[in-house]
Parts: sequence; C-alpha cells; structure tokens
Amino acid sequence: MPDTSLPDAGSVRAAATRLAGKAVATPLFGAPRIDALCGGKILLKAECLQRTGSFKFRGAYNVLVQLGAAARRAGVVAYSSGNHAQGVAAAAQMLGVPAVIVMPSDAPAIKIGNTRGYGAEIVFYDRYKESREAIAARIAQERGAELVPPYDDARVIAGQGTIGLEIAAEAKRLGVRIDAAIASCSGGGLITGCALALTEAFPGMSIYSAEPEGLDDMRLSLAAGKRVGHDPAARSICDALLAPIPGELTFALARRLLAGGLAVSDDEVRHAMAVAFEEYKLVLEPGGAAALAAALSGKLDLKGKVVAVIASGGNVDRATFATALKN
Amino acid sequence: MPDTSLPDAGSVRAAATRLAGKAVATPLFGAPRIDALCGGKILLKAECLQRTGSFKFRGAYNVLVQLGAAARRAGVVAYSSGNHAQGVAAAAQMLGVPAVIVMPSDAPAIKIGNTRGYGAEIVFYDRYKESREAIAARIAQERGAELVPPYDDARVIAGQGTIGLEIAAEAKRLGVRIDAAIASCSGGGLITGCALALTEAFPGMSIYSAEPEGLDDMRLSLAAGKRVGHDPAARSICDALLAPIPGELTFALARRLLAGGLAVSDDEVRHAMAVAFEEYKLVLEPGGAAALAAALSGKLDLKGKVVAVIASGGNVDRATFATALKN
Repeated sequence: MPDTSLPDAGSVRAAATRLAGKAVATPLFGAPRIDALCGGKILLKAECLQRTGSFKFRGAYNVLVQLGAAARRAGVVAYSSGNHAQGVAAAAQMLGVPAVIVMPSDAPAIKIGNTRGYGAEIVFYDRYKESREAIAARIAQERGAELVPPYDDARVIAGQGTIGLEIAAEAKRLGVRIDAAIASCSGGGLITGCALALTEAFPGMSIYSAEPEGLDDMRLSLAAGKRVGHDPAARSICDALLAPIPGELTFALARRLLAGGLAVSDDEVRHAMAVAFEEYKLVLEPGGAAALAAALSGKLDLKGKVVAVIASGGNVDRATFATALKN
Repeated sequence: MPDTSLPDAGSVRAAATRLAGKAVATPLFGAPRIDALCGGKILLKAECLQRTGSFKFRGAYNVLVQLGAAARRAGVVAYSSGNHAQGVAAAAQMLGVPAVIVMPSDAPAIKIGNTRGYGAEIVFYDRYKESREAIAARIAQERGAELVPPYDDARVIAGQGTIGLEIAAEAKRLGVRIDAAIASCSGGGLITGCALALTEAFPGMSIYSAEPEGLDDMRLSLAAGKRVGHDPAARSICDALLAPIPGELTFALARRLLAGGLAVSDDEVRHAMAVAFEEYKLVLEPGGAAALAAALSGKLDLKGKVVAVIASGGNVDRATFATALKN
C-alpha cells in the first residue's frame, strides 16, 4: 500500500540509515573548464554510478526493506520505463523478494535486459495505448503483491532524498555553501526528496526541476499553482522523464520547496551528454543529463554561484550515446 | 633534477599527505554482472574521474609541490603523449609555476587542447623521428627549468602510488582482502607505486601489469629478468602506453613486487571500453581500459578472487570512443 503521508527531512535521514552500505555514496565533483564557462561552480552528483545505473535503487530499497515478512513473500510489482524497474528488481534480489515489472515494450533494450538480469519477471505494455497503472494494479490484486510506486510515496521520496543529504555532507566537507541545485524531474520523487534534505542544510537555496521541452508538466504546474499535465503528443529522447503529471505528494512538496522549473530541448540534452563524456568522463543517459543540460543552457545565471547538478542515470543504448557524441 | 632514489611505502604515504584535498579520492566500485561473468569480484578504481582525467596529476603534483621558490619561478618542462602533459600542466597552474610540455604532434586532440587549457606552453615533435627526451633536455637547459620525469622518479612513483593506498583503505572499509591487482603500464610509475602501497597492505597479493600486445616491454622484461625494449615498429590504440622500455627505478621495483605481465589486443581494449560504458557508466580511454581488458580476457583465473583493477584514464576523442562502442 502506498505511503501517502508527506515526508520531511527526518524521513530522508531515516532512509539514509537504511541505505547505508547498500546504496553507493556517489561522488560529487567539478570540472574546471565547465566552471570557467559558466562563471560559477558546478558540482556534479554522479548518480549514474549508483547501483543499477540510476538513483531509483534508493527509493525502491527504502520501500522494500520496510516490508514485513508476509509482504516480502507475496512479492512486489512496479511499472516503469526502465530505471525504477531496475531499482525495484535489484532491491528485490538483494532482499530475496519476488518482483514483477510492467515495462513499455519500447523501453531501451539495456534497461529491459538489466531488469531481467536482476531476476525480475517482466510484463510488457504499449506505452501509447494501455494503462500501466491498471496492469500493475491487476497483478497486485491477483498475487497479493505490494505495488512499489515510482514517485508518489513517502518512502520513495525519502529514499531519493538521500542524494540531497550526501550532497550537503560533501559540500560541508569541501567548505562550500550550495546556492542552487538542479535535478531532473519526471514524477518528482528525486527532486522533492533532495529538496527536503538540501533546504534544511542550506536554508534559502534555490532548487529547480529540469524537464524535456513539451513534457515540462512540473514547470507548468509550478507556474499555474496546481497540477497540470503535459501534452500527451509530446515526445523526447529522455525516456526516463515521461510521467504525464506531477504526483500529488511530490507536487505538494514542490510548491513549497522549488524555486521553479526549467525545460530543455533534445539538442541541449545531447550536448550535455557530450560534455559529461568529455569533461566528467561519465556516461549519462538523456534523462540523466537533463539537469546538466539546464545548467549549461544559460537559462539560469550561475555567475559566482555554487550549483549542485544531479546526473541521475546512465542507462543508455550504445547507438543513442554515439549519436549524442556527434553533437 | 630527477629523484633517482628508490621509493618505499613510506614515500607513498608522504605523497598522500601532500595530495590530500588536491587530488580526487576516486571511487572504487564493482558491477554485479561483471562479477557473475568472471566468478570473482572486480573492484574498479575510477581514476578517469581524477583531476585532468587521468592518474598522472598525482605524480606531477607530488613533484611540483616539493620544488623550492627559485625552481618554481624558473618553471618546469615535461614530455608526454598527453596525460602526463595534462597532469603537469594542471599541477603547475594550481601552484603558479610556468610549464612547457613537449608533445607528439599526433597526440589526441583532446589531450592537446586540455594541456593548453591549463595554461601550459606546448612544443610539438614527431613521435617516430625525434627524441622527446633531447628536446625537453634542451628546453630545461635553456630556461633553467626543472624536468618532470613521466615515471622514473621517486616522487612521481610515490604520487601515483597514492592510488594503491586509497584502494587498500577502501577495501578495508568494505571488509575485503584484495588478492590481486591489475594496472596499465607504460613506463611503470603507476603500477610500481601502487604495488608499494598494496603489497604492504595485503602481503602476498599478486600484482600484474597490463600492456598492449607488441608493446609489452614490462612483461618481456619481467620474464627476462632484465630491462628489454619492445619492437619499435609495434603500434596500438593505447596512445598512453607507448613507452619503449621500463624505467630503471620502476623495473627495480617491478622485479621485486610484480607477479607478472599481461598483454592485451586492441580488440580486447575496445571491448573493455564498451564494458566500462555499459556496466560502470565510465568513459575510459584505450590505455585506461587496458587493465580491465586484461581482467576480462580470461588470462588470469579470477574465480573466487577479489581483484582491484585500475581504470587509469578517460581522455579519449569522441570518434575513438564511438568506434569502441561498435565492438
């Protein structure tokens, strides 16, 4: 059953205790030439180096580890375009819990292969015709399995927020104050969890969501002051950032904690992937490069600022990556 | 003046004190699918995330920071196919020391551009016709500049060895004993420095050099029990691993500390680059992937073993990387 309570910074700290030694404390580092270019200091959180290649493992593990013995035996079900799938599958494998994942049939091959590699059962659906929520709900009912929501759940948000805690701890170790942070946003679990931890550590700092142009429902919702969906006809290379509308919990947090939303084009995303390759030696998937793309786009004035940028995932097919390098 | 004394584990610890807060303490992590494949546990040291994109910054900084005020004013000179160039240039920039770098005219564009970006003056030479040592010696004499040797220097070896110290510390934190380590080898500074630190931390462990086939002079030298050069006609995509013969200091250490040498083909290197992309989300240059290539090649039985593999650099042109992804 989803946990629809509103998490706070304490929930994130509790999640960090559960994740200690299970999730990778991913590195945070800068690139001198990027700093020279933007006139500020960008600290990149290399969450592509996380177990399963994206941040999603954190939230998934924080849900599964709190399940009781009977729930663990009955198993879990999740729907996902790929990264949440891998996160749930890997957490389930670590904890010995059976997992069924509902994935779109056009998900990147690497994400499908990896999910299967973690031992999960996969059920495919048509992204543009079928409801993944309905399919997952049916499976949950049939098997008595627990649904692991991709973002609108206090445990998931708190798990993703541990990234914000790590950023704050590392910044304090480096002796810098973080002025702003940018994170990719699909349903909003990552950015709102991080915002809980970061705004507690650095009161007054500004936090921005990064979304693909046309799929920027968080940006639209923040501007409108209410949850607004994006145009269902919109497309993007950011296969991880396609959620149709912010979650209820995540939007409640976002309204309070975010400074605004930024939208990036596919070309800006490809450029950011090439920059990550060249300057940070990191492999980022399109959605994982959206925050860096926003930082590099000039949409925010970074002059003299210290900006944490979350590189949220690296699960990208070879061909997509090679194309980005041609940018 | 080169320091031709033989460094020991204490020299490496002293270097670590000088490098603290200057070099990145790069992450060490595994990939479950790779472990399943080789039947052991590979811990990859992501030194491509080091300042300048390779381990070379460590040795260079450890030399420059020990220069007196007059020597710092006179500046430094170095010869390098690229990574040592960037390491010296970046360390010089940090310490306000003028630097001249002698580079082959066919060095990867990214390495030339980066070296220039750190503010160094570049002098080009023909890799197959001219002596870089002679050119650097002439510049050193003309300007009174200090030559920063690429490997055969106690300070350089000790600086590179700090990687071994970090591996040992992280392994102890993880509660594992390291059975073997593999590092790329050109002149031998990286592998012998690391061997000093690692064999002290884990007595009895086995350390192997990884070199391109045909340029495997360390392997040949270890087998012959004396320094042997490789065939000057040999070629490899590993532009960072072309030194003609092991150094005198490095070979003296290698004889005592190394278990043997491994040679890898260009195809094995490209495969390792693709594996690093897919499983570790890291960008490795050919020379930086040689140790991983050796680990994946089946030349060593890794079954049940914990093996530290040093991914030594990530400065690779886009086209070379895209070609490796087609492997």
